[in-house]
Amino acid sequence: MRILGIDPGFAITGYSIVDYIGNKFKLETSGAILTEAGESFPLRLEKIYTDLDNIIKTYKPDAMSIEELFFNNNAKTAINVAQARGVILITARINKLDIFEYTPLQIKQAVTGYGRADKMQVQRMVKMILNTEKLPKLDDITDSMAIAICHAHSSKFSSQFRV
Amino acid sequence: MRILGIDPGFAITGYSIVDYIGNKFKLETSGAILTEAGESFPLRLEKIYTDLDNIIKTYKPDAMSIEELFFNNNAKTAINVAQARGVILITARINKLDIFEYTPLQIKQAVTGYGRADKMQVQRMVKMILNTEKLPKLDDITDSMAIAICHAHSSKFSSQFRV
Repeated sequence: MRILGIDPGFAITGYSIVDYIGNKFKLETSGAILTEAGESFPLRLEKIYTDLDNIIKTYKPDAMSIEELFFNNNAKTAINVAQARGVILITARINKLDIFEYTPLQIKQAVTGYGRADKMQVQRMVKMILNTEKLPKLDDITDSMAIAICHAHSSKFSSQFRV
Repeated sequence: MRILGIDPGFAITGYSIVDYIGNKFKLETSGAILTEAGESFPLRLEKIYTDLDNIIKTYKPDAMSIEELFFNNNAKTAINVAQARGVILITARINKLDIFEYTPLQIKQAVTGYGRADKMQVQRMVKMILNTEKLPKLDDITDSMAIAICHAHSSKFSSQFRV
């Protein structure tokens, strides 16, 4: 199974392509879709759509695993991230991907076995599970790896499809 | 100029196609994209994308006029509307539409000449300007007409493109 992990954002969307075959993980690629503050809002959304569409068509994942969105203190940021997340979801659906959503608690639980694990602990486990020498500089990318791992672990125990 | 007016929503998205030629308005069509509460979130977004894509391809508007999103008291609703609005914006961009965003104040100002006009006043003016016998039952549809009218009036005075 090839999983596209997504940490949704407006300025930065972390993504990773993780293969999970026979209980073994392989990190195929990872990166971030960046949009520039100087661009208009619709053009920034368009960049997210175009880049993600390209990533999906290039790596052909079987499913997209994405973090659920929770309201945070900054309403303006939350609204923009939500609009970007809408674009991400529809880009996946246009490409016929099944979509799975996980809460931060579920992601931490799946990666470290502990729902209240801190960021460092999650990063250490992602590094170990994916057997990578170095983690990316952007936390958003590492988070997208954790989200992909979460789906691999969850789909072992459940074949419930969210779509 | 043919304008697609959109009142963005998650359960209900009001839309209208308004022609504005030689200072005259003609309401070509209007309606609402409805999504069902029982469906999964990604499928509801997909319905918005598919229906809107179909409307744009059928009526070939020159531009989309859409209300700006403000944070309201219900965070959950705001987040869902924002994700739906992201889908709406990217559907317009996929179809190469220019996008114009207006605040509620700008819309009321453009339709009634008064930024603090109440809902009734806006509805009366929409009915008069578009010369329709009856307004739709759903306020979302009438609002989308007001948003289209706002762009027609604004674009007379400004050729500023937001995209």
